[in-house]
Amino acid sequence: MSLLLKKIRHNPLLWLLAFVPAVFAAEKLEPEAYTLLFVLSVLAIVPLAALLSHATESVAAKTGDAVGGLLNATLGNLTELVIALAALRAGEYMLVKASIAGAIVANTLFMLGASFLLGGLKHHVQEYNRVSARVQAGLLFLATIAMLAPSALTEVDATAKAAVIHKLSVGLAVALIATYGLGMLFSLRTHREFFGSVEHADAGEKPWPIGLALATLAGVTVLVALVSEVFVESVQEAAKTFGLTPAFVGFIVVALVGGAAEMASAFSAARKDRMDLSVGIALGSASQIALFVAPVLVLLSYVLGPAPMDLQFWPAAVSMMLVATLTAALVTNSGRSAWFVGVLLLMVYLIFAMTLYLLPPRSQ
Amino acid sequence: MSLLLKKIRHNPLLWLLAFVPAVFAAEKLEPEAYTLLFVLSVLAIVPLAALLSHATESVAAKTGDAVGGLLNATLGNLTELVIALAALRAGEYMLVKASIAGAIVANTLFMLGASFLLGGLKHHVQEYNRVSARVQAGLLFLATIAMLAPSALTEVDATAKAAVIHKLSVGLAVALIATYGLGMLFSLRTHREFFGSVEHADAGEKPWPIGLALATLAGVTVLVALVSEVFVESVQEAAKTFGLTPAFVGFIVVALVGGAAEMASAFSAARKDRMDLSVGIALGSASQIALFVAPVLVLLSYVLGPAPMDLQFWPAAVSMMLVATLTAALVTNSGRSAWFVGVLLLMVYLIFAMTLYLLPPRSQ
Amino acid sequence: MSLLLKKIRHNPLLWLLAFVPAVFAAEKLEPEAYTLLFVLSVLAIVPLAALLSHATESVAAKTGDAVGGLLNATLGNLTELVIALAALRAGEYMLVKASIAGAIVANTLFMLGASFLLGGLKHHVQEYNRVSARVQAGLLFLATIAMLAPSALTEVDATAKAAVIHKLSVGLAVALIATYGLGMLFSLRTHREFFGSVEHADAGEKPWPIGLALATLAGVTVLVALVSEVFVESVQEAAKTFGLTPAFVGFIVVALVGGAAEMASAFSAARKDRMDLSVGIALGSASQIALFVAPVLVLLSYVLGPAPMDLQFWPAAVSMMLVATLTAALVTNSGRSAWFVGVLLLMVYLIFAMTLYLLPPRSQ
Repeated sequence: MSLLLKKIRHNPLLWLLAFVPAVFAAEKLEPEAYTLLFVLSVLAIVPLAALLSHATESVAAKTGDAVGGLLNATLGNLTELVIALAALRAGEYMLVKASIAGAIVANTLFMLGASFLLGGLKHHVQEYNRVSARVQAGLLFLATIAMLAPSALTEVDATAKAAVIHKLSVGLAVALIATYGLGMLFSLRTHREFFGSVEHADAGEKPWPIGLALATLAGVTVLVALVSEVFVESVQEAAKTFGLTPAFVGFIVVALVGGAAEMASAFSAARKDRMDLSVGIALGSASQIALFVAPVLVLLSYVLGPAPMDLQFWPAAVSMMLVATLTAALVTNSGRSAWFVGVLLLMVYLIFAMTLYLLPPRSQ
Repeated sequence: MSLLLKKIRHNPLLWLLAFVPAVFAAEKLEPEAYTLLFVLSVLAIVPLAALLSHATESVAAKTGDAVGGLLNATLGNLTELVIALAALRAGEYMLVKASIAGAIVANTLFMLGASFLLGGLKHHVQEYNRVSARVQAGLLFLATIAMLAPSALTEVDATAKAAVIHKLSVGLAVALIATYGLGMLFSLRTHREFFGSVEHADAGEKPWPIGLALATLAGVTVLVALVSEVFVESVQEAAKTFGLTPAFVGFIVVALVGGAAEMASAFSAARKDRMDLSVGIALGSASQIALFVAPVLVLLSYVLGPAPMDLQFWPAAVSMMLVATLTAALVTNSGRSAWFVGVLLLMVYLIFAMTLYLLPPRSQ
Repeated sequence: MSLLLKKIRHNPLLWLLAFVPAVFAAEKLEPEAYTLLFVLSVLAIVPLAALLSHATESVAAKTGDAVGGLLNATLGNLTELVIALAALRAGEYMLVKASIAGAIVANTLFMLGASFLLGGLKHHVQEYNRVSARVQAGLLFLATIAMLAPSALTEVDATAKAAVIHKLSVGLAVALIATYGLGMLFSLRTHREFFGSVEHADAGEKPWPIGLALATLAGVTVLVALVSEVFVESVQEAAKTFGLTPAFVGFIVVALVGGAAEMASAFSAARKDRMDLSVGIALGSASQIALFVAPVLVLLSYVLGPAPMDLQFWPAAVSMMLVATLTAALVTNSGRSAWFVGVLLLMVYLIFAMTLYLLPPRSQ
């Protein structure tokens, strides 16, 4: 416990934890103050995500690679998953899908680009494991194709369409999860020697004792779940106050808030010239969301949601995911980076953000 | 002749030749039993394709590389060509196009993916000639763009459109055949040293004497033509019995039946760690179909068909070809493979197959 | 002055300068003879472009890399810029956009392809700086995505749409120019050692004295501007005489005329096995147009044009730019070329040209 407190004292990011009780107080006192609730919940999610990320890494460090990989898969994107589950239960499938697509695009363009830029400003040229980047890019490419498939059914007449798309979505979800599992088998078991340097991924800080890590994991997950519910309820109303379109909020704001902790880790690794870790977090997190979180949400919607959710995204979202994936694949092909490569990735993200920002609310 | 009989005795696949007379008997006795005719003709085409493939290789081994290359071009995909010609004469252009697009997608995704998977399960990492793979991928990419071009004309008003699309299709067909010829000149003549290891492509089995090979070639071609006619006539009716959509039959069933023999060769080569041959068969066959078989069919439709056939494919087919080509290009770029690369390719094929399987018949 | 005359005597291309006064005479005497004016202005632009290109290189050779790079950016595509400005003032935004998109496609496919082919017919295999080619391809890819973005807004209702697209276009234009500037900083300053061999780009001929170069620059720019105005006025009318569609004229004819001088340099460099220079001219010129000329025209349209111009291209143009950019990226990835690589690029260009040639005028 003193370890946890020590950690909080030394990490300014964690001072934001003070906003966690503030959110709950505000929600009790002013349930209609959406803008206030939105700002407070964003400020509270960031440190919780950081704690969650560190606790997960500590558990993974103890359990070894195989189980650690599985834990990373299920827990690494826990914030995104919990936010999405809150939206799923509320039946806000538009928000769920926007946050999935937004997270994939933010990870492959913003997180990777900013890592290359920040790392490149300090180090002239940086090298990383291109085999690992290729496998992740391949997984992402596959997921994008899967999300493209349901739109091939657009010409089907409306009554038959819904049933067909739901059948297809379940099939795609199972295929994606299976591929994700086989990908872990490949990189953690049969061909682990090609993914070597990713192993020291958790060598950055001294891991916590397993008991503390598990307790933190449990406690923080509950807190994230509660705060996320406030976030999901307030975000769309607050967006109107700021004059933001729902598309911009779902795609950009939610994605950046949900990925805040991972971004902090990726940027810090890039500054230390540990690009394997940086690229691994960015692309690994994106492929986790695409091949694990998204399909699991589709399957869970049959249990938790008011109606089944499909895997059909609107055309602009699929285009953005396709461009982001293709860009990441082309850029990481060489296994080397410099600051300008980061600029190129960030510019693609800026183009997307500008377009979504200007999109009038109605058309969405 | 005894050599031919010996070959048949030692290859269990060729026992299926017994189904060839069965097809003709069934067609005489039960011309309306479409399902039976379909099953029998599939079972009869597979061994005939295998014989044809081996006879072609034997002739190619005798005539040297340059003529052998030309022979491979004209005869390698003879099964596909004969099936397509049967459909062409019947005016079933939908089936012709579906079988062309389906063969390209099946070769670049299923044949290549299954080769990588089967080879990778036995060998840890496999290497192959990346220059050769690149040229084939480049040819395929070009052909896909050519098939994309006519859809740029969709906004033209209907009356002028047909004439324009036919003119464009003839121009594209000539350009593709010319490029295919130049590609053979490049890989067999001017830069053959870069395509080295493909040369021992026919070193697998002892070639037949030229006389036997030519006789087999002539005889089997006639048989394939006769059986294919039964296949084309029965396939759509049989599909209804099995509850399959026409799109699924044309794209998946016909493509897998037509490519059965080549697949057997490609898989066997992959198990023997001869990936150059494997990749050469998969991508080489795909580019043959795209740059030689398809354009030749367009030109032949002016002579044989009830009306000229154009090179315009429906959007979903072009998308699939584009994705398949791009995937193959990205995947073969490194010149190395492992089992998981095969899984990725097969998963893309599975996504396509699932989508086509669920597509309601009407919408096609 | 005698140096200029000597240059003219030794370069048969420059004998075409005799057509410059012919254009002005013809315009005075026969202002309605569009076909004559079109032919004369094409013949006059070619040698002027050649002079301009050489004068620019001479100035760049004197001022050093950093300023030289900026000069190349602003002056290298001066012919294209002046032609586009003439069309911009006339409010012919369709022609401006067609010439931008056409120049990008012509440079990445025709100029690069013909360089590979002509160089490859003389030299077996040619190598060039792949880092440089990658950065250029990356810039082009970014620009293509920027031009794709406004089409994401198509579903917005018409009244709001124009305003949104203009805001977005200005934002995109600023982002592209900034990226172009950062790209120059990267290749000329911080990582210049990776772009080494491009430095002897102006080592081909002895540069002119700076005074002559600057005077030529000023004088020829005025002449190009005057001739371009005649060209822009006559091209569409002349096209009707030749039975050419406006799309074909804007995309193919204007692009080839505008790039004539650079093509001459690129082809001559390829024959001398200086592929770094060849690839640098082709891709560098394309990225200049995409990331500098096009955005500058958008911004200038607020000052010079009858109405602001946006960055929205029609779908077929964006598709062609996307295919051209992707093809160039895939092809230059290896840093090696042979004649057949040139054939592939030229065939893609031929497919585009055929499609545009057959497109009926109305549908455009």
